[in-house]
Amino acid sequence: MSPTLPPLATKLGGLQSSAIRDLLELTTRAEIIGLAGGLPDAELMPRERIAAAAESALRTAESLQYGASPGAPALRAVLAERESARLGRRVALGEVFVTHGSQQALSLLAEVLLDPGALVVVEDPAYVGALQVFRAAGARIVAVPLDADGMRIDVLADLLARGERPALVHTVSNFHNPGGVSMSPQRRAELAKLAEAHGFWVIEDDPYGELWFDSPAPAPVATYSRNVIRLSSASKILAPSLRVGWMVAPDPVCRAVELLKQGADLCGSTLTHHITAELLADEAWLAAHVDHVRTVYAGRAKSLVHAVRLRFGDRLRCTDATGGMFVWADFTDGTDTQELLPRALDAGVAYVPGVAFSVDGGYRSSMRLCFTTAESAVLTEAVDRLARAAG
Amino acid sequence: MSPTLPPLATKLGGLQSSAIRDLLELTTRAEIIGLAGGLPDAELMPRERIAAAAESALRTAESLQYGASPGAPALRAVLAERESARLGRRVALGEVFVTHGSQQALSLLAEVLLDPGALVVVEDPAYVGALQVFRAAGARIVAVPLDADGMRIDVLADLLARGERPALVHTVSNFHNPGGVSMSPQRRAELAKLAEAHGFWVIEDDPYGELWFDSPAPAPVATYSRNVIRLSSASKILAPSLRVGWMVAPDPVCRAVELLKQGADLCGSTLTHHITAELLADEAWLAAHVDHVRTVYAGRAKSLVHAVRLRFGDRLRCTDATGGMFVWADFTDGTDTQELLPRALDAGVAYVPGVAFSVDGGYRSSMRLCFTTAESAVLTEAVDRLARAAG
Repeated sequence: MSPTLPPLATKLGGLQSSAIRDLLELTTRAEIIGLAGGLPDAELMPRERIAAAAESALRTAESLQYGASPGAPALRAVLAERESARLGRRVALGEVFVTHGSQQALSLLAEVLLDPGALVVVEDPAYVGALQVFRAAGARIVAVPLDADGMRIDVLADLLARGERPALVHTVSNFHNPGGVSMSPQRRAELAKLAEAHGFWVIEDDPYGELWFDSPAPAPVATYSRNVIRLSSASKILAPSLRVGWMVAPDPVCRAVELLKQGADLCGSTLTHHITAELLADEAWLAAHVDHVRTVYAGRAKSLVHAVRLRFGDRLRCTDATGGMFVWADFTDGTDTQELLPRALDAGVAYVPGVAFSVDGGYRSSMRLCFTTAESAVLTEAVDRLARAAG
Repeated sequence: MSPTLPPLATKLGGLQSSAIRDLLELTTRAEIIGLAGGLPDAELMPRERIAAAAESALRTAESLQYGASPGAPALRAVLAERESARLGRRVALGEVFVTHGSQQALSLLAEVLLDPGALVVVEDPAYVGALQVFRAAGARIVAVPLDADGMRIDVLADLLARGERPALVHTVSNFHNPGGVSMSPQRRAELAKLAEAHGFWVIEDDPYGELWFDSPAPAPVATYSRNVIRLSSASKILAPSLRVGWMVAPDPVCRAVELLKQGADLCGSTLTHHITAELLADEAWLAAHVDHVRTVYAGRAKSLVHAVRLRFGDRLRCTDATGGMFVWADFTDGTDTQELLPRALDAGVAYVPGVAFSVDGGYRSSMRLCFTTAESAVLTEAVDRLARAAG
């Protein structure tokens, strides 16, 4: 920084860019097959349907004006309907709050729920966007490992038994990013019970729940307790550029988030709210659209998993890919995935090393593979390249 | 709050909703003429041109995908062109950062520039969105009064001479909200000189600069020093629902804001960025459009000011309305505008009492009047009603 400019805030010394974002910038060369990204496939997004909804929204001047901080009423109404069906109870309008993607819900909730130094429990490996937010909020972060049934609730229970008192527990309950697993119904019930017994909040971060391949995701953790704040998003089923995420939370939480949103950015885009409301309300069209996305992603996921197992056998164990966008893979022979990455890039394939998702530097032999943006044949070629790089 | 729910963060006790927002909710009854709002006129927004740009943007899948945190490259490029012309120097792409309205730039800059307890100088009366952000950041706030030539730089110089060391000074340099005045060219130069001499940042918040009525706004404060971070917005010249604001700032500031934006909401809407880029790049169309908005607002402003002077004479002194959206008026006979408000609402007219914009409870005989959303005849009727209420 030029010595003639005034200083920046001292706390900025502790901020770091997302490792994934920085990596993404390095791996967008055309000759590299990107399994590193975390993007949905733009070609599967309903461009013509969105254009029609935009045209329809722009027939009224209201779509151009500032809107209420909690979101356009038409969008909140259709979200309340959908969430009522998902949660099996009547979700009131006042419990639904629209945010600029669910990342904004996370960042505003960190301010609403956490005093500095508060304990936050995350999953390990963790969603990096959540880690970034909780670290910036000055939280003390403790990680609880995942297994094939999601967060190890027994490990959480041990923490609580030792006297730890989290203010909140964050979980990606369905088709975990990056872990690829879903929390079992029994663990969902146990987590909710612990939340009520020990008085902590649960943030159930669920952007991928509708992207199931073989059978629908289990009932949300939020069906078991009002201590659970549920987040979801239109980014993975419609389009990220709508910047529509939402939160279902008790009224006092929504009101506190509203005050913060006024200072943060006043309100969302009435235009993209109206577009999203029209698409979500068009139930028959939406069901067919999401079904198509599921079918395509399921085919790609199965190709990737099949290729990994065929090429690597027991050397690289990966999750089954039952939904979502990611497969998590562990080298069983100690291969260091950070050391492997430059050779993989030379061979023409990119992935994210496990350490990028680790709370304490672990997962050195793991990697996250994204299967959403390449055809099956390309994914198979990517695994061939990875095998060549791994020798 | 239900006693069975976990607690919220203790710091939330200090947060208050914007007085203006709460008031707005009370004054949207159809029979009330609203001079209280702060909204541009939706009927003047270029709905058909935006619809055409949306259609064009939606011809490519890129408009649906996640984007870079600093904004869509096409939008940053056209903003860099425009700001180069405005600032009279070559503004680099790296100095331009797109935010979710300029309110988001303010809130991210508060995090980037302020340590807790830092001194922030604001204008008095102040833009409430800035006050809200600086208070939430834990800043110590000192107010410097406005006069007909904008911020009293002599008062700021006195503060500095007494040893006060602000981290930043916030100014709405053109057509002040709520004060209605613009900073004179001489004061702009003086402010920039003080910023360099004492090593503080200036945030030049300029959403209204293009809405001049008789002659263009003076050269921005940012033309005088690199210590000045310039904010502007598409909300007042195109449409608020695009949620496009931007910042021109030195590279280290933009990079720090970028890290914070990743955690706050990942990125803006590629769709509305592409729409805005097309509209701003269409220079002949844009010039004619903004000229039309200026002409309409100028006519309304002059009607309002004329009616106030005709009805009230010396009892209510108001600014000249040379641009922007607001007139500031002071009762010279001590009429308390908060006490008057219920009678004004009964008479069918709404305004915002001056105290809502005060840092320390002053401006009890002042009010802000917005002239953007009513025709001249309606504004004249509003002043008649105000005169009846004031007795």
